[in-house]
Amino acid sequence: MLNILHRVGATSTSPDAAFTALTTIDGLAGWWTRDTTGSADVDGVIAFRFPPGGFDMKVLELVPGKRVLWEVVDGPPEWIGTHVSFDLRQEGEYTIILFEHRGWAEEVEFMYHCSTKWASYLLSLKQLLETGEGAPSPDDVQISDWH
Amino acid sequence: MLNILHRVGATSTSPDAAFTALTTIDGLAGWWTRDTTGSADVDGVIAFRFPPGGFDMKVLELVPGKRVLWEVVDGPPEWIGTHVSFDLRQEGEYTIILFEHRGWAEEVEFMYHCSTKWASYLLSLKQLLETGEGAPSPDDVQISDWH
Repeated sequence: MLNILHRVGATSTSPDAAFTALTTIDGLAGWWTRDTTGSADVDGVIAFRFPPGGFDMKVLELVPGKRVLWEVVDGPPEWIGTHVSFDLRQEGEYTIILFEHRGWAEEVEFMYHCSTKWASYLLSLKQLLETGEGAPSPDDVQISDWH
Repeated sequence: MLNILHRVGATSTSPDAAFTALTTIDGLAGWWTRDTTGSADVDGVIAFRFPPGGFDMKVLELVPGKRVLWEVVDGPPEWIGTHVSFDLRQEGEYTIILFEHRGWAEEVEFMYHCSTKWASYLLSLKQLLETGEGAPSPDDVQISDWH
């Protein structure tokens, strides 16, 4: 099993504020994609849409201020059945976000792309938490021909 | 064995120009760290230094316009013996850079950090290739308390 891992830290915020950005439709639309709909409660399904397509995430676990876990239930074949999680904690003046996208079957080139793209979106989340303004799709940073 | 993988694409450049940015001291100093010294030839050792420390990379393989492979010979214990590679190719108007940092022993939190930080430096490389100006250390993007 192959995993994408990232770590960012944001100042002027809190694990509770980060949790809100990860567990409300408005919060998610502020850093990942503006086209976010669905139910962000446990057992709900959140639909994230981007110009080239999208992902449906089932919410498996929510621990307020601490952890969010999703399972990918629809999207590109490489993503289906994989898990995405965010672990939150405070470390001095930084709210630390540990990100995991677990369960890739193969090191396909799309995995390389998604790894870089996740980093870019997590920096958008950091920016949202620190300044109130993220860079969600379609206003995200274009990193290559695959957007 | 655990790996960090990334993919970026740059326009207005070429695999040859990317190769130069990866295989000359000046090129490397333009996107990773200004404090880069040593020999960038095969069997040479390049010393990359950052405010918190640094890495020594032995150059194992150079295929002009196509591939660069380094082995980490000094630095943080988690890095020593790991391998860093860059594979280059042209895809339409994009020069594609496939990045690998292979051979991590464990999913330590430092690996999460390095994964995000590599993405940020690869976007600095993209920016250098596209505009002539990257964001190398110490002018790099701070992503967390670990810089």
